[in-house]
Amino acid sequence: MNILVINCGSSSLKYQLINSDNESVLAKGLAERIGIDGSLLTHTPAGKDKVKLEVPMPDHKEAVRLVIEALLDAEHGVIGSLSEIGAVGHRVVHGGEKFNRAVVIDDSVIKDIEELSALAPLHNPANLIGIHACAENMPGVKQVAVFDTAFHQTMPEKAYMYGIPYEYYEKYKIRRYGFHGTSHDYVSARAAEILGKKREDLKIIVCHLGNGASVSAVKNGKCIDTSMGLTPLEGLIMGTRSGDLDPAILDFLCEKEGLSSSEMNTVLNKKSGVLGLSGGLSSDFRDLDDAAEKGNKLAKLALSAYCYRVAKYIGSYAIAMQGVDVIAFTAGIGENSAGVRADVCSYLGFLGAVVNEEANKVRGEEKVITEPESKVTVMVVPTNEELSIARQTLALL
Amino acid sequence: MNILVINCGSSSLKYQLINSDNESVLAKGLAERIGIDGSLLTHTPAGKDKVKLEVPMPDHKEAVRLVIEALLDAEHGVIGSLSEIGAVGHRVVHGGEKFNRAVVIDDSVIKDIEELSALAPLHNPANLIGIHACAENMPGVKQVAVFDTAFHQTMPEKAYMYGIPYEYYEKYKIRRYGFHGTSHDYVSARAAEILGKKREDLKIIVCHLGNGASVSAVKNGKCIDTSMGLTPLEGLIMGTRSGDLDPAILDFLCEKEGLSSSEMNTVLNKKSGVLGLSGGLSSDFRDLDDAAEKGNKLAKLALSAYCYRVAKYIGSYAIAMQGVDVIAFTAGIGENSAGVRADVCSYLGFLGAVVNEEANKVRGEEKVITEPESKVTVMVVPTNEELSIARQTLALL
Repeated sequence: MNILVINCGSSSLKYQLINSDNESVLAKGLAERIGIDGSLLTHTPAGKDKVKLEVPMPDHKEAVRLVIEALLDAEHGVIGSLSEIGAVGHRVVHGGEKFNRAVVIDDSVIKDIEELSALAPLHNPANLIGIHACAENMPGVKQVAVFDTAFHQTMPEKAYMYGIPYEYYEKYKIRRYGFHGTSHDYVSARAAEILGKKREDLKIIVCHLGNGASVSAVKNGKCIDTSMGLTPLEGLIMGTRSGDLDPAILDFLCEKEGLSSSEMNTVLNKKSGVLGLSGGLSSDFRDLDDAAEKGNKLAKLALSAYCYRVAKYIGSYAIAMQGVDVIAFTAGIGENSAGVRADVCSYLGFLGAVVNEEANKVRGEEKVITEPESKVTVMVVPTNEELSIARQTLALL
Repeated sequence: MNILVINCGSSSLKYQLINSDNESVLAKGLAERIGIDGSLLTHTPAGKDKVKLEVPMPDHKEAVRLVIEALLDAEHGVIGSLSEIGAVGHRVVHGGEKFNRAVVIDDSVIKDIEELSALAPLHNPANLIGIHACAENMPGVKQVAVFDTAFHQTMPEKAYMYGIPYEYYEKYKIRRYGFHGTSHDYVSARAAEILGKKREDLKIIVCHLGNGASVSAVKNGKCIDTSMGLTPLEGLIMGTRSGDLDPAILDFLCEKEGLSSSEMNTVLNKKSGVLGLSGGLSSDFRDLDDAAEKGNKLAKLALSAYCYRVAKYIGSYAIAMQGVDVIAFTAGIGENSAGVRADVCSYLGFLGAVVNEEANKVRGEEKVITEPESKVTVMVVPTNEELSIARQTLALL
């Protein structure tokens, strides 16, 4: 069966069509600038060149229609009829405390996702637009919601509660939820598989280091802690997000800079992280690496502060799990930056990690990068959220 | 020589008169409600009963005058003339990047402390009031400023810089400073001394757990990281302070509760921590212990979240120092709560800590609480900030 995986943003829509029998990707693509002038659909059929279509996409319904058209196209299409799409799997950002696993979408699920928009005002409404657009274009095809927060729902109370008045939890459900759950789930499971072990027998720390970045502690198959919180702003220093901060800095800066708390929130989400710390140089680690090599002090500072924070989270999660067997690096930076991995691992000698420098040169491939005698196994495990969404969708049919 | 140690708040003044020859406390006391109706001076001469004086104290100058009067009093005084006070040592909260050690106070130091009030608007002005009040009552007596931030000035850039635009550091000096520095310095030095080792040879984690609470990593005698930040709000869950938080929670709550960022800051400082998390039950750990024992779920939650966070900081600092030899508990809760210590230590088996339950029953005394074979030495070391201030004052004369 073929499963269409959809990741819908407010003005974009990413998709993959996955053959669930052999788990191959038949086609993938991206619709950009939906509802904005200059809409663009980039469609890449497996083994063929990518096709770029500049066509108006006034709304997501039209975007989904064009995606289906591309999938069916005589030249760059990959299926013969709509009936070859067996189901649609949607990435949904916030499942709150309601969803600890993927679910088949019905009216009551849609209502729940709408209600959870209070916790993810930028993401859940966009995800819902994608769900409605698919329902209109593919009536009768089953749709599944896979939540970014679901895998983290096993966290104990002591890990997910903040030290703020309890009534805020009761009134607004303010707590740590964590994100990238599909990735943390997939990577921790795959790491165990690669090692020929059961995830249930391992203590795994997953470092998902992309433009957004988070760390999770997966003990015996269950997430017990993760660095992102109520929103994806908490935790690591990211591309443009601050991560952890003295909460008093917000009021201090609001006053000094004459900003509202909402404007300050935007600064912390869009202009901070390594971009901000490097003095506005770049949020791209290749740029930072280049600049650092040429002696740029702020690029060096951004990189060292970034890695130091990752290492500190590894330390705190090793304590939280009372041990660590496996540390898995994933996502853009985790899979590709040997420099970041080497710097993070430079702190891990205390855990008995012995890195093989040659092995650490790997880019985007599954590989153990520690020596056989290393007490903790450090590895690179490319994430595949789309495949995980397809699998979870299939499992519900 | 006798040294008068002063810790001055906006409406209070704590003091100790210390004989620096034998380091004994001749008298100590507290002036409360200065400038408010119902001013009260509590004076305790060594070995005698405490005296309570309800006398009007319209300002700090009058408070200092009354303290001196009490010290000279025929009945409950401890010295014969003002000339027996050789120097005054002041606790000053914020020394910014300017002060990495104690200094003799002169006009230029006063100007610097004034300028640093931007970073500690509640504390530095109060400390200055105390300095001026002493200068007026004891002209010619040398005064020394001992900064709460000074010991942490050895932190490397990667530990003290936040992931926010670099210009905020340039314009406002926003960075991690850390507090309780006098205590972290004193306790780490004393821990080494008790163990008959040099602090320069040890990796020490100090857990200062009082109503305010912070953890520091002291590597080879130098602080390399600490949990409080720009202000004393960051880090651990405290009595009434939130500690670490998803920074996005502030904007979220400001909007939901209709609060300004400044009002939200007050909630996070005064109504949060274990007080908030326990549903307003108490910020006092004895109350929480009692309630938890009777089955109160929120008291249990507050205690377990508190200890879990301390343990996670220990883990991250063990990684930051690439090892840990000694963990020292200090301040009200750290010195007296066997329950908190036991819960924190329950995570430390991974570090090779083997706690002796009987030894852990200690209250307020210097004691090693781990077994001889323990890989990390956990100990209780009562803090003594006043003695440390007296010593630093003496060293500058």
